[in-house]
This record gives sequence, C-alpha cells and structure tokens, in this order.
Amino acid sequence: MPHTPVWFMRQAGRSLPEYRKVREGTTMLEACTRPELVAEITLQPVRRYGVDAAIFFSDIVLPLKAIGVDLDIVPGVGPVMAEPVRRREQVDAIGVLTPDDVGYITEAIGLLTAELGGTPLIGFAGAPFTLASYLVEGGPSKNHEHTKALMYSDEHVWHALMSTLADISAAYLRVQVDAGASAVQLFDSWVGALSASDYQRYVMPHSQRILASLAETGVPRIHFGVNTGELLPLMRDAGADVVGVDYRLSLSDAATRVGDGVALQGNLDPAVIFSSPDAVRTRVDAVLDSASGLPGHVFNLGHGVLPTSDPEVLAAVVRQVHERTQH
Amino acid sequence: MPHTPVWFMRQAGRSLPEYRKVREGTTMLEACTRPELVAEITLQPVRRYGVDAAIFFSDIVLPLKAIGVDLDIVPGVGPVMAEPVRRREQVDAIGVLTPDDVGYITEAIGLLTAELGGTPLIGFAGAPFTLASYLVEGGPSKNHEHTKALMYSDEHVWHALMSTLADISAAYLRVQVDAGASAVQLFDSWVGALSASDYQRYVMPHSQRILASLAETGVPRIHFGVNTGELLPLMRDAGADVVGVDYRLSLSDAATRVGDGVALQGNLDPAVIFSSPDAVRTRVDAVLDSASGLPGHVFNLGHGVLPTSDPEVLAAVVRQVHERTQH
Repeated sequence: MPHTPVWFMRQAGRSLPEYRKVREGTTMLEACTRPELVAEITLQPVRRYGVDAAIFFSDIVLPLKAIGVDLDIVPGVGPVMAEPVRRREQVDAIGVLTPDDVGYITEAIGLLTAELGGTPLIGFAGAPFTLASYLVEGGPSKNHEHTKALMYSDEHVWHALMSTLADISAAYLRVQVDAGASAVQLFDSWVGALSASDYQRYVMPHSQRILASLAETGVPRIHFGVNTGELLPLMRDAGADVVGVDYRLSLSDAATRVGDGVALQGNLDPAVIFSSPDAVRTRVDAVLDSASGLPGHVFNLGHGVLPTSDPEVLAAVVRQVHERTQH
Repeated sequence: MPHTPVWFMRQAGRSLPEYRKVREGTTMLEACTRPELVAEITLQPVRRYGVDAAIFFSDIVLPLKAIGVDLDIVPGVGPVMAEPVRRREQVDAIGVLTPDDVGYITEAIGLLTAELGGTPLIGFAGAPFTLASYLVEGGPSKNHEHTKALMYSDEHVWHALMSTLADISAAYLRVQVDAGASAVQLFDSWVGALSASDYQRYVMPHSQRILASLAETGVPRIHFGVNTGELLPLMRDAGADVVGVDYRLSLSDAATRVGDGVALQGNLDPAVIFSSPDAVRTRVDAVLDSASGLPGHVFNLGHGVLPTSDPEVLAAVVRQVHERTQH
C-alpha cells in the first residue's frame, strides 16, 4: 500500500446521515439480515472517506440471534436478552452455528466483494468474553458483576459457555472468510475489565481456539478490546496477527509490550474528533509519530466512532494519514 | 493496628437497607447538608461491618453545589448540570469555596469524630479532572468527549477550569481536616480515560497542588482512580501517601510500578461480592497474598461497593481480612 492504511471501527453506522436515511423504518436486527442494505451501509464510509478497508455492517450479537437466542437490540440501550443466561441447562440449550443460519451474510459479502474491487473487506465477530457478558448480564453492563460471579463461582459452567460461544464465533468468522472477507477482527470489547491472570485462565484459551481455527485460511486476524493495556501481550499470544490498541497507551509503548512479529492497529482517541481542527491534526500526527518505524501499522481510532462525530472531521483524518504517510 | 485495616469505597449508602430507610423522603443533596443524617449514614457501615475507617457520606459535586453551581443529583443517573460549562466566562463565574459555604460539613464531622472515638474518619473530594468531566459534559459520561475536546482545543480555558476546581477541592478538604478528618482521599474516578502523557500535561499539576496544600496538616493523602494502571507512578508523584489501585492490576505489580515509600490501597474487584462464598474467600486471599510484604497496605475494593451488593458478604470480607492478618 502506498500509505499507512486507515479505517475506523464503527465507520459504518450512526454517525453518517446517509446511514440514518437508509435505516429509517428498519430495526437494527432486520437491517443486519438484508443483504442489499448491509452492502449499502458497509459501502457508505468507503465512498465518503476513502478508507482503505470496509468493515461489514452488523452487530456482534447477530450470530446468537441467528441460532435462536431470544434477544433484541434496543435503540439507545444495546443488545437485551429475553432472559439472562446463568445456568448450565441454559448454556446447553445454545446451539451451534452453520452457514445456513446466516445465508444472508454470505450473500451480503458476495455483493460487497463484487462492489469493493481491491478494497479489503474485514469480517468480524464478538469474542467469547464480550458475548458472555451480554448473555449473563442480560444486556449491556458497566461492571459485569454477574458475568464475573459466574466465572469465579462455577468454572465448569463458565468454560462450557465460553466454549459454546467460541464455536459460534469461529464458525461465523469462517462463513465470512469463505464468502470473501479478506481479514477478520475479533472484538473483545469488554475484556479489559479483567486482570491479566483472569484473562489467561478464563478467556484466553477460548479466544485462542477461534483465532487458531482461522490460521489455515491465511487471512490476517485482528484482535481488539478497550482498556487492554495489561492484556496486550496475552492477546498477541492468543494468536493475533494485528493487535488493536485503545487510546490509553502510546503505540510505541504498546509495541514494547507486544514485541516483534505482530502489527498494531490504532489508536486515535475517538473523543479527539470533537476537538478543534488544529488539535485533531496535532493528535493524528502524534499517533503517526508514535507508530513511526513500526511495520504494518494500521491507523484506526482507539475505540469505535462516537455516534455524534462529525463525518467531515473523520474525512480530514483519512486525508491527513494518507498525505503524511505517502511513500 | 493489630491487623490490615479495611474499609470500602461507597461503604455508606445504597447497598445498606438501614441507609435506604433513613434516606426515605430526602433527596441526595438534602441528605448531604443535614449534619445528623450525614453522621448517621457515615456510621452505619462502621457499626455493621466493623470496618477500620469511616468515610464521610457525601457526593463529589457537593462543594460545587455549595458555591452556587446549578446542578442536581438525579436518582439512577448521577450529577446533572443545569448547563454544561465549556466557555471561559462560565469558568470565570465559578466562585471560590470558604468554610462558611459548607458549615454543615464542619458540623457533621464534629458529630462524627465525637461518636467514632479511635476509628479514623476519611474526608474526601473529587479531583479536578473528574469534576471537570461532570461540568463540561453536563452529567455522567462514558467517553468524556466534550471534556477532552476542551482540553485538547483550548488549553487556556482548560487550565483555568482545572485551577478553579483545584482551589475548591483543596479548600473543601482543608475544611474537613480542620473539622477533624484524620485522612483524606482525592477521587479522580474518571482520569483513567487519559493516557499518561495527557495526565501529566493536563491534570497532574492541579491534583499535585491540592495534595501539596495538605502536606502541612500531616494527614495521610490517598489518591484513587479507576483504570489507572498506566498512571500509578504519576499519581504517586502527584503527592499521594497512599495510592488506590483498581482490580485490573495485582497489588504486587502495582507496587513494582510505584516503588517504595508509598502504601497501596485495594483491590478486590467489587464484582467478586456477587460470587459464591468460596470464590469470595479465594479472591480475598489472593489480594492479601499479593499485598504480602507491602508495608501499609489498606484493604479495600478496587472501586466502589456496587448498589446491589449483599451486606452479609461484605461483612464476611471484613472478618476474613481481620482474622487472616491478625498479628
């Protein structure tokens, strides 16, 4: 690539007026199951920003919904379960995911790869801890107390749940790669709520199994979570080719922690997008300075695009990264 | 002390039935201004748990309210400002705090020290970054985007705001110490949203000034925030005698980061309280093991008591810490 590649987590979606327009009258979960709509929403930020990758528009709970878990995505709240999952028999009742459960995903990716030409399409899935948190809490949670209580109190049920979720995520990512996705990101958004030793014992084996299952496909595997400064070396060891870094740690410090042989993705604070044009430029430069000399750096935000972000500012960030890193 | 001292952040308040009873029919801000009620609520967890310190029942926005900032504490939401503070003239309009503004605090602490006997009373205040976030966002915030935007975009207004807030917090802590508080905790709950370099440039000088202003009083100064693994050495340098550690980092790792000459406070994950009795015991032991050999360790949670915590479990934690560390 002639410059540092750039894309934004949540680049497709709420911050774009053209997204809000096409989503009118459609629920989130409906939107995720309509191939033409998924393709259109996925392409919107590519057209608008000239980012170097598309990321498939969806939600991390979609594969759970697809195999019959009773949940909804409530506007302004997030994924809400009909019933929290905390008992063994509930875990055992969660099925497996087959390509037929998500035929609309295969179809959407087919449409997208045809449209995208040389621009890579990133597939994604939620990692087991983050999915488990939604299931066990029954919805979004600040403190993950029921999730941790299950993890600490009943290791058998915990690992059964995590293993079930790992199978689902692995199968779901495989569907996306088979359909044409050229990279994948495994989102463990909330895993930064754990200490390194808990991560290693309760989470890592499951995320590792997902990432290992994709090794033979040869696609780059990105692994990301927020608040993961203490976990970065373990997330690398889980099998990531690219480790996403949130905005709390400079990329040069993150590189020291993860060592050679793995690329970094990040890490402009999404809150910077609300700053003055000068401040945005200075901060983008600081990220690029910090990444200087790091092979394979992928520019991104340190977390998803905030819903009230100004798309013009994001467009200026893409231009700046491209211009400054042109070679 | 014959054992490791233990207290819990937010030990007074929502998790106790006796608290909910005495608060009936009173708003949070009213409750904070009634000396007898403050004293009663502060004493409740001391009676129930036998903790080794009382922490003054209040809210970090109280001193702002006391000097006329138009705000309310909305149940289930938190502090909400009538108007977000983002412009220079709004910053200039914030006054200073004098002991007369908070006479009810002096009175409450007088009642408390009389009742508490030898049990220390910890005073507290919000640190400037955390107070600034409530003011600039207009209420609680997940991403602190307007706060950071102001910080990055207009350093003059930012430092003026932080300096004003530092004066208020310093004066407020001084009132508490003069009235009889025997230690203070400076809460920078949300500062873990910043990188170390941003903390150093935009926050540390102000927190440092507050802590320095208390040096001559000789009371121990505790400094705490969540998600502060990267910031601990700087929070020590800001002038803390005791650094609070959240649950993401073991106390032994935290000790390596902060070095000698400072004590650590923490760090049982408040979510552990929802686990089985066996799991709670194992986790309390793990904290004590990790603190073994660290002089001055104060046992606490790694964040505040969660509102739905079972008081019986907290009582058992206090007993376990006392029994295991008796010498």
